[in-house]
Amino acid sequence: MSSGKILVAQGGGPTAVINQSLAGVVLEARRFRDVTRVYGALHGVRGIINEDLVDLTRETSHNLELVAATPSSALGSTRDKPDLAYCEEIFKVLRAHEIEQFYYIGGNDSSDTVRIVSEQAQQAGYPLRSIHIPKTIDNDLVGSDHTPGFPSAARFVAQAFAGANLDNAALPGVYVGVVMGRHAGFLTAASALGKKFPDDGPHLIYLPERVFSLEQFLADVKATYARYGRCVIAVSEGIHDASGEPIASLLAKEVERDAHGNVQLSGTGALADLLCDEIKAKLGIKRVRGDTFGYLQRSFIGCVSDVDQREAREVGEKAVQFAMWGGRDGSVAIKRTGFYSVDYELMALSDVAGKTRVMEDEFISASGTDVTDAFRLYLRPLLGSGMPDAFRLRPSPVEKILKK
Amino acid sequence: MSSGKILVAQGGGPTAVINQSLAGVVLEARRFRDVTRVYGALHGVRGIINEDLVDLTRETSHNLELVAATPSSALGSTRDKPDLAYCEEIFKVLRAHEIEQFYYIGGNDSSDTVRIVSEQAQQAGYPLRSIHIPKTIDNDLVGSDHTPGFPSAARFVAQAFAGANLDNAALPGVYVGVVMGRHAGFLTAASALGKKFPDDGPHLIYLPERVFSLEQFLADVKATYARYGRCVIAVSEGIHDASGEPIASLLAKEVERDAHGNVQLSGTGALADLLCDEIKAKLGIKRVRGDTFGYLQRSFIGCVSDVDQREAREVGEKAVQFAMWGGRDGSVAIKRTGFYSVDYELMALSDVAGKTRVMEDEFISASGTDVTDAFRLYLRPLLGSGMPDAFRLRPSPVEKILKK
Repeated sequence: MSSGKILVAQGGGPTAVINQSLAGVVLEARRFRDVTRVYGALHGVRGIINEDLVDLTRETSHNLELVAATPSSALGSTRDKPDLAYCEEIFKVLRAHEIEQFYYIGGNDSSDTVRIVSEQAQQAGYPLRSIHIPKTIDNDLVGSDHTPGFPSAARFVAQAFAGANLDNAALPGVYVGVVMGRHAGFLTAASALGKKFPDDGPHLIYLPERVFSLEQFLADVKATYARYGRCVIAVSEGIHDASGEPIASLLAKEVERDAHGNVQLSGTGALADLLCDEIKAKLGIKRVRGDTFGYLQRSFIGCVSDVDQREAREVGEKAVQFAMWGGRDGSVAIKRTGFYSVDYELMALSDVAGKTRVMEDEFISASGTDVTDAFRLYLRPLLGSGMPDAFRLRPSPVEKILKK
Repeated sequence: MSSGKILVAQGGGPTAVINQSLAGVVLEARRFRDVTRVYGALHGVRGIINEDLVDLTRETSHNLELVAATPSSALGSTRDKPDLAYCEEIFKVLRAHEIEQFYYIGGNDSSDTVRIVSEQAQQAGYPLRSIHIPKTIDNDLVGSDHTPGFPSAARFVAQAFAGANLDNAALPGVYVGVVMGRHAGFLTAASALGKKFPDDGPHLIYLPERVFSLEQFLADVKATYARYGRCVIAVSEGIHDASGEPIASLLAKEVERDAHGNVQLSGTGALADLLCDEIKAKLGIKRVRGDTFGYLQRSFIGCVSDVDQREAREVGEKAVQFAMWGGRDGSVAIKRTGFYSVDYELMALSDVAGKTRVMEDEFISASGTDVTDAFRLYLRPLLGSGMPDAFRLRPSPVEKILKK
């Protein structure tokens, strides 16, 4: 170490706890006497090439703690995915500011960015330590038991379905809730944790890990409605037909794609509306309602898992420790060591970057429309303490007089 | 009092605290030695005519407390609006079970149901005491400072926009959040309480109390986006054009109406999607996202105002006290007596039933797209304790080296 300057940035979709990781990096780095400056880049890699840097060494520990408890990316984020030319711009800035450690907090795409930057640095002979710090509500990073951000979003989804189920029980009908998750169904599956009694919803869960058939869907809804007089359904935005074509994009008039070639699935209620229209038209059910949870599930302030907060803080801290004492680039991964306990490892970037984990078969029921107890056991400790609970009046019917 | 039997039911849309009112009625009524039975009707007035009654005298106080803290209508609800024939069916059941007091927890439509039942009872010479207990997230009952259920839904909306604003600041663009409220904009206006810093969103708020013009809307968004590089917008589902036609129903292919002749505005993402499409097409902004808060805002478990809980409990308790000692039918109203304190009055049913309160002019800014400080002062104490807060990193820019 010569300059002692390090840089941290946040990429991809914000989460409820991504600032915990930021605080973890900054507060841990400031404990090392060799660290002279902790810089932050505004709006991820874009802030680096634009030289939009801030000095986090000049921030109070107290305010860092308050920011850590605030959802969304305090430094701002980006969807940019650096190519070769972009990386050369990054190096120019890193060199100019004599930055020797680069921490990037993000998901799949961000880990790939770190991998490219790391490789480019090696090719350029620039002495840079690059560490990817995991973050994604999709829980789709390979090698990790789970990813920071997922537990809090999962808690939101579980609480939302617990409430939607109660609402649907009071005014019976069909309710469709569309949940984020392009390829991995973990977040949609979290809806199952909102269920308490055997007849509670969600009664049906549709995941991107299984092929979606509109005919089978309608048959499932019809059977459930016949059985319970109502039906609560959790649907992943990423459901697709047998050819892999997303059901959502089959409908979209204009398909919007981001810099990564991804189709926009969030920020529109089209999928929920289509499914509701089909149920009304084909099954003749009058009261059919659809909600798209949208950005609420990742940004809602005041719904967070304390386990998630703790772990998000620790992956930031551990990233700095790995960088200082590990001697190699990598991606921090969470490993489960008990029920419930975790430890952290530094994985090779090439083992994580650009790869996508989906739900393991053992987590999905044979029917394909429910989760297994293995999944419930996997997810429950992540939701943290203080989960709200739902209670019912116990049945005590009054004898009928007129209609005996 | 002869039979000592009373009946309570819940009507209309569920809220986070409607079971507090139910518990208030049951627990308070059980304190009166003359009350021999407390019955509940399942699914509102429909449960009465179907004789689907339960004996709440046989429920434990402890479980009633747990149910009170659970959102949605524990007895079930209905959208039925009794006419003359329907009321005759109600009387048959009330007479058969010798019920002498009828408590109906609900909003506008439910208060009108109580009025009709009360009048029918008088015309029929049946000795029935009928009390309407207020409940609606729309906050649109006349004569009340506010209605139970509104504060908790308002808290959800404020927290949702506080989070959406942070998300939008991290990944700038335009965000449209559609909020419930057919005629009254109170709940949409609550989005303003999610704002902390002057440049925070919601930057624009569209209420049903003002005529909506698509041209003006686009001009507002364009100006805000030019100023802040982003724009967060709160839109009421009830916005309408100069002729009073809802913007939402102008789009709907098939307009669905309920038994009250109301157009379905909730449970569809159409309004948000249309507004987003217009912004993309007319303003050329690429990142435009729309969310419809839908049923989450009234059913989400774990987001509740403690002030709302307390007051919802008290309107139930007071209803029983008014019935026992007041000697007349009526609707319980909340009156503000301090900052912050309330008391309760029994209003004449004809002064409340079927009438709709909308936002007072003093609560809406001259621009028509923001609220006044009077509204902030009105709403803030209702949101209760423990509101989550958002913190920012304080600016400390690093001097640019390459791009001086």
